[in-house]
Amino acid sequence: EYSKYKRYFTPLPTLPPIPADNPLTPEKVKLGKMLYYDPRLSRSKIISCNTCHNIALGGDDNVKTSIGHGWKTGGRNAPTTLNSGFLKVQFWDGRAPTLEEQTKGPIQAHVEMNATPELVVRRLKAIPEYVELFKKAFPNDPDPVNFENVAKAIAAFERTLNTPNSPFQRYLLGEENALTKEQKEGMKLFVEKGCIACHNGPVLSDGRFHKFKSNNDTGRFRVTKNPKDKYLFRTPQLLNVALTAPYFHDGSAKTLEEAIRHMAEQELGQKLSMEEVRKIKAFLESLTGEIPLEARTVPILPPERQ
Amino acid sequence: EYSKYKRYFTPLPTLPPIPADNPLTPEKVKLGKMLYYDPRLSRSKIISCNTCHNIALGGDDNVKTSIGHGWKTGGRNAPTTLNSGFLKVQFWDGRAPTLEEQTKGPIQAHVEMNATPELVVRRLKAIPEYVELFKKAFPNDPDPVNFENVAKAIAAFERTLNTPNSPFQRYLLGEENALTKEQKEGMKLFVEKGCIACHNGPVLSDGRFHKFKSNNDTGRFRVTKNPKDKYLFRTPQLLNVALTAPYFHDGSAKTLEEAIRHMAEQELGQKLSMEEVRKIKAFLESLTGEIPLEARTVPILPPERQ
Ligand code: HEC
Ligand code: HEC
Ligand code: HEC
Ligand code: HEC
Ligand SMILES: [Ca+2]
Ligand SMILES: [Ca+2]
Ligand SMILES: [Ca+2]
Ligand SMILES: [Mg+2]
Repeated sequence: EYSKYKRYFTPLPTLPPIPADNPLTPEKVKLGKMLYYDPRLSRSKIISCNTCHNIALGGDDNVKTSIGHGWKTGGRNAPTTLNSGFLKVQFWDGRAPTLEEQTKGPIQAHVEMNATPELVVRRLKAIPEYVELFKKAFPNDPDPVNFENVAKAIAAFERTLNTPNSPFQRYLLGEENALTKEQKEGMKLFVEKGCIACHNGPVLSDGRFHKFKSNNDTGRFRVTKNPKDKYLFRTPQLLNVALTAPYFHDGSAKTLEEAIRHMAEQELGQKLSMEEVRKIKAFLESLTGEIPLEARTVPILPPERQ
Repeated sequence: EYSKYKRYFTPLPTLPPIPADNPLTPEKVKLGKMLYYDPRLSRSKIISCNTCHNIALGGDDNVKTSIGHGWKTGGRNAPTTLNSGFLKVQFWDGRAPTLEEQTKGPIQAHVEMNATPELVVRRLKAIPEYVELFKKAFPNDPDPVNFENVAKAIAAFERTLNTPNSPFQRYLLGEENALTKEQKEGMKLFVEKGCIACHNGPVLSDGRFHKFKSNNDTGRFRVTKNPKDKYLFRTPQLLNVALTAPYFHDGSAKTLEEAIRHMAEQELGQKLSMEEVRKIKAFLESLTGEIPLEARTVPILPPERQ
């Protein structure tokens, strides 16, 4: 009696869409992984993508709002990089259309890595192994160590940071017992209450903007300056959401229960019973997948030439 | 004609000495690895052992003096954790006799992780998977989630963080061509010039204290308050030294050449030729080993119970 709900959901494909101008190759993914883990992409040399999007923690940093260069914060919660290739737009306010564009943001943001394209390229050029790896990843580029290619390589790696084999994924693919009864009840509620209206597609995000007022952060309006966009935020994905507390763009919800209850009230004008919250939570917990071992293997980063 | 120098050196054993009160078990190593990578051992939740002793970077942080909680620094350079189980005493000033004692330092240091034993234990007890893992690692302990056991588990993991198969190790074990001629020349100079007097044993440290005045840091004197100990520092290991620039307790030498030249002058009262420096450097580069894949595989850390 639950199977009729399956059609509202989309199993996670093996790979997200790959842009024509950044084909996925093993050489690029290898380089991208190294850059993702390399703190020398930051001015201080101590902050990497993995600092805030820690693979050990579910691709995020577990804190309310991220802390970056100089112990400063930008006031927003770090979403997970896992499965981020499936998002239609990047950032809470959707200000980057692609992962390539996205990546250039944190490297330069004063409250994150606080570097410049020139600094990053200069550092990488001083490391012979990196020069070699850029040549291999971008064989047709006469001067491959450049900021565009840094972004392309990291984006390529991120497109492999996907988490298959979650209980829910296995259920969708036919393994009837992969979900508990409680989780199936949660799935049903997720559809019937209307969560599915915004949280849909392979990562449970429509990639669109919806009103969510929490503090002075005006969200999408900051990007478009269009008054109609005030307090609009892009629907976040829900895969691995059990690993990415706290919740919302400002990390204001400490627990998944709190986030679910709040969503029902703010987005659907409903009050859920404790039991309903519990069931939806159990369902969301079934969205935790497996990080491929390859992405979890720390690269050995080359030292600077001396 | 180089083989007569081999007897001055000791190949790296598979494991360092294991203290009787902290036997090495797979369960403990597994737990220790998780704790090593877990930033929730710090007050801010964003700094782990791996932040400053980054496995991707050679077990250190590549910066002059480490940056910790609140973007503060303690003014000392972070040595590598790789092969640290072979050191006779821990820290530049030898203030910890064992890895177990050592570990309690950074977790509590205000400029490092700035936590307290109570905070750490409270956080770990709130995570059911950790409670289970502590039970497995310390099966005879009625209340296994305690600060002593945190230290024991991390120390156990560190004792597996060894780097076999360096070219020099292979050379010592009989693979004649594992070293270049230049590296063999460097080995010879390392013995003949007298570096071996202090840099000896399996990790090329005698574990003793020697005068090295660089700034106001009085080294061993800070620990003993004995005026004879002013400006004494424990000889650091040299395994993987090509990965751990900058050098010395204050990170004052940017390159390996600089460190070698400085050592010869300060410790041996000699001036080396450019060629001699080059050869010794080549020899030291042959000390870079292989980090076991197991230690390089990022653990999946459990979320807090919500
Ligand atoms: C200091 C912390 C910090 C660092 C370092 C950092 N990020 Fe982020 N990241 C964030 C925060 C906070 C956001 C959300 C910002 C926003 O939406 O305005 C974010 C957003 C993202 C997103 C968008 C995900 C989504 O769901 O919209 C991706 C992808 C991402 N970061 C990847 C990276 C990569 C790649 C790097 C390294 C080049 C990096 N980040 C470095 C904190 C950080
Ligand atoms: C009208 C669109 C819409 C509906 C309906 C909706 N959501 Fe959301 N959801 C969002 C948006 C937008 C956010 C991001 C809010 C923010 O932090 O700015 C969000 C955030 C969340 C989060 C936090 C994710 C994170 O990583 O921080 C959870 C969990 C969640 N929704 C679950 C649900 C559940 C369960 C329901 C149904 C009870 C639901 N949502 C209904 C749009 C919606
Ligand atoms: C904020 C940076 C930082 C953090 C976090 C940190 N360390 Fe260190 N570590 C250092 C510095 C700096 C030293 C040298 C301090 C000294 O000798 O006074 C050091 C010394 C050591 C040593 C001694 C090595 C030697 O050659 O004497 C070991 C072992 C070690 N740390 C392990 C750890 C472990 C385990 C953790 C986590 C529980 C940790 N460190 C957390 C910076 C850090
Ligand atoms: C009398 C003892 C002694 C002798 C002889 C000696 N060293 Fe050292 N070495 C030390 C001590 C002590 C330090 C740590 C100094 C400090 O930073 O406080 C050190 C540090 C180093 C370092 C930096 C390691 C690091 O990780 O920062 C290198 C490299 C080094 N020695 C190489 C050599 C070479 C090459 C020689 C011979 C030319 C040599 N040493 C001779 C005691 C000695
Ligand atoms: Ca979050
Ligand atoms: Ca290093
Ligand atoms: Ca160093
Ligand atoms: Mg997390």
